[in-house]
Amino acid sequence: MKKLVCFFALCLSITVFAQDKAAIKSQVAHAIEELRDFIAIPNDALNPDDIDRNISWLKRKFGDRGFNTAELATENLPLFFAATPMEDNKPTILIYMHFDGQSVEPSKWNQPDPYKTVLKKPTANGFETVSFNELNDDINYDYRLFGRSTSDDKGPIVMFLNAIDLLKKDGKEIPFNVKVILDGEEEKSSKPLPKAVQQYRELLEADFLLIADGPIHASGRPTVVYGCRGITTMTLTTYGPIKPQHSGHYGNYAPNPGFQLAQLLSGMKDKEGRVTIPGYYDGITVNEDIIEVLRSVPDSDEAIADKLQFKTAEKVGGFYQESLQYPSLNVRGLGSGWIGPKSRTIVPESATAELDLRLVPESDGTRLKNLVKSYISEQGYHVLDHVPSKSERMANDKIVTVTEGSVTDAFRTDLNSPFGVSLVQTLESTFDAEVVRFRIMGGTVPIAPFINELQIPAFLVPMVNPDNNQHSPNENLKIGQLAYGIQALYAILSTNPQ
Amino acid sequence: MKKLVCFFALCLSITVFAQDKAAIKSQVAHAIEELRDFIAIPNDALNPDDIDRNISWLKRKFGDRGFNTAELATENLPLFFAATPMEDNKPTILIYMHFDGQSVEPSKWNQPDPYKTVLKKPTANGFETVSFNELNDDINYDYRLFGRSTSDDKGPIVMFLNAIDLLKKDGKEIPFNVKVILDGEEEKSSKPLPKAVQQYRELLEADFLLIADGPIHASGRPTVVYGCRGITTMTLTTYGPIKPQHSGHYGNYAPNPGFQLAQLLSGMKDKEGRVTIPGYYDGITVNEDIIEVLRSVPDSDEAIADKLQFKTAEKVGGFYQESLQYPSLNVRGLGSGWIGPKSRTIVPESATAELDLRLVPESDGTRLKNLVKSYISEQGYHVLDHVPSKSERMANDKIVTVTEGSVTDAFRTDLNSPFGVSLVQTLESTFDAEVVRFRIMGGTVPIAPFINELQIPAFLVPMVNPDNNQHSPNENLKIGQLAYGIQALYAILSTNPQ
Repeated sequence: MKKLVCFFALCLSITVFAQDKAAIKSQVAHAIEELRDFIAIPNDALNPDDIDRNISWLKRKFGDRGFNTAELATENLPLFFAATPMEDNKPTILIYMHFDGQSVEPSKWNQPDPYKTVLKKPTANGFETVSFNELNDDINYDYRLFGRSTSDDKGPIVMFLNAIDLLKKDGKEIPFNVKVILDGEEEKSSKPLPKAVQQYRELLEADFLLIADGPIHASGRPTVVYGCRGITTMTLTTYGPIKPQHSGHYGNYAPNPGFQLAQLLSGMKDKEGRVTIPGYYDGITVNEDIIEVLRSVPDSDEAIADKLQFKTAEKVGGFYQESLQYPSLNVRGLGSGWIGPKSRTIVPESATAELDLRLVPESDGTRLKNLVKSYISEQGYHVLDHVPSKSERMANDKIVTVTEGSVTDAFRTDLNSPFGVSLVQTLESTFDAEVVRFRIMGGTVPIAPFINELQIPAFLVPMVNPDNNQHSPNENLKIGQLAYGIQALYAILSTNPQ
Repeated sequence: MKKLVCFFALCLSITVFAQDKAAIKSQVAHAIEELRDFIAIPNDALNPDDIDRNISWLKRKFGDRGFNTAELATENLPLFFAATPMEDNKPTILIYMHFDGQSVEPSKWNQPDPYKTVLKKPTANGFETVSFNELNDDINYDYRLFGRSTSDDKGPIVMFLNAIDLLKKDGKEIPFNVKVILDGEEEKSSKPLPKAVQQYRELLEADFLLIADGPIHASGRPTVVYGCRGITTMTLTTYGPIKPQHSGHYGNYAPNPGFQLAQLLSGMKDKEGRVTIPGYYDGITVNEDIIEVLRSVPDSDEAIADKLQFKTAEKVGGFYQESLQYPSLNVRGLGSGWIGPKSRTIVPESATAELDLRLVPESDGTRLKNLVKSYISEQGYHVLDHVPSKSERMANDKIVTVTEGSVTDAFRTDLNSPFGVSLVQTLESTFDAEVVRFRIMGGTVPIAPFINELQIPAFLVPMVNPDNNQHSPNENLKIGQLAYGIQALYAILSTNPQ
């Protein structure tokens, strides 16, 4: 990796230039038209033709800007790759975004077609559809574009393309080799990605990875995320009678799988939500320096409690951001027999708990799952990876079937990584606002294989408004964020890292 | 209640007479035709017209046998009542049966119409439909009649009618006043019954209650049941965030309702299934005499374990029949978020456990529910009978909503009740087999209000084969049981209780 120093003076001059408001607005106007055109191509990865049509569009748009482009075959749908001609003396930045979107249910949207972008202005009661002609006189940054993937994640791709345009108009040379990798299956968990990254390792080689996905902090301040928790899952099933039995005939005689499951789960955590399985939190240190960064995130624990309507949070961390530094053990689902109007007077045949374990870099997913399994064994349960046979049932008093999900690793880039320091300074000077720095985000992105394979510092630089209805009907992008993203990428791509 | 002594010699003479096999077979042949005719009238209590048509049939059939009949209006569908002309010097026997049946799904039956009785003979692979002409030469007691309510519970009504016929043919005087009450909503929980029994208290007054419903013991031996457990239900709901939250963002921060529920439930029982809530088993004594009766039931705990495929039963009682002498606490359902393919990475908004509590006479349902609620309070939970408001959520760390079902009481007639002693002797001498005596049955019958209102000894005398597919498709009655029921009722109704 090339050494990186930010020339602060240069950053400032860029900032002044990029903040020529008229030039930005004109570029935003262009970006709106380009985004409408892009959104109009449906992008559900369940339809491979959708992905092909989007790739054709991307080839043309990146080609027009002087990028070399390629379609990278994978085990499933292709990835799109673009790069500026490589120059040996420049560091290389790899940008990851995705062009597929969540599946749509048009009937749930307040517009006829989620792929036909609608312009709306904010009102006292929400949003009101207006004609695009309203933008002719002035681009109102509070107006929003509604459509699937306006925010997640076609918007950032269009911001990138228009930042490139603006850099060209300003005659700026980009002090990086720029590689762009665009995923077509992110919303379907990017399953082919890990193998593809291994296969195309050399092509993807870079000094830093920048991920433009997800929303900025709710405060509206520029945001940089240094890591994401990973995830793995476990399914635990306990057993009662082989078929559901009449609870009159067999209640307090046939073993009850619900009580067994309850007893197993209840021993995994204390009453304040801390995992009590030995070793679960091993290796994690949250020192004063880290606490300081975590405290700098302008979250309000009181506001979260008020919004989610609970009195006291679990006590894994002392406050919200600290809690994210630890792996979680979450009961995401419970099921046995029936509840509600369908409930029947039976001793159910089984009871199931679905667990998810969010991981941090110190907590290897396989290690944590083994700890949970050891704990279960120590409670006197026979742990199986399959539904027990009759002979297994007759030979063991207590049986748990444990099914394990795959592991998506966590990643976390050092807060003092030089490119990260430069990134933060660039954003702070561009927007004259303190950057919100997340040491690690609670959620998981399928990007971890990149980072683990390429072994480079990685940063999420979110571009879109937090209230964008990502993954839901009425997804939208605030036009002001389109301007934000163009400016942010302009500044990042024109800041000489040497 | 009149004093009751069984003249054993008389019983024997009756037996000899009633066992004139040709006379019985001839009566069975008549009963088969009468049952086919009765089954042909659909009897789903969801259709009041069905119930009316059945009552018309019953009025005619009981009227033909010299009974006075009446339709008793209730809050919902009418009950059918019939009685012989009352004579002051005779004790009165009240017989409860029901003529409604479970709803049918014809497509799940192996015959075109569940209300059109089909005759089947047993084969190596199950049953094979045969023509009713096959009965012309001989009534084969191993053949079966398939149709809705053949066993549950029109069969016993037809057995009763034909026992009356046979008594008349034999010129026997019935040494009882006989009252018959036939329920038309038993399969829909007999909701109007408690009030109706109060309303018609005088009409229903009797010295003993005999309930002809349910199957005999699997051994095929004559069976008398002295009691049934009652039932009540509770629904417990714990709360997480007000709406499901992303488990990455809020896992190990927002309270997890599944863990809370698990911790609550796990403290209610020990690991061997005994309820540990203080007072739950108060008042129950199972002494050596009782144990002897319980042991006399020809159950095999090993066979139950083998059939239900578990190694060790819960330890509430030392063996199956003993376990039924205690109230149960059964988790009949658990639900939170989703399990299986629909599961999502969320912190669910709530978790629910559906409990049923089977009751014994010592265990008042309201008292047990209060014990459970006290236990929950002692664990630091705020117990509500409604979904918490925001202010309740913000003021209390741990909240449980408890919803309570109504209570159906248990009943249990003394094993030494004189009529019961006579009943057992009559059956034993009629069938030359030891009667299986159940001190209490695990399940619940909606008959408890009768017994509690009328305060008379009550006995279930089941008539039908245990493998009758009651409540399911392909319900059937073994023709031999039709003969059994006619003989049993003949013997009971001709045994002078004075």
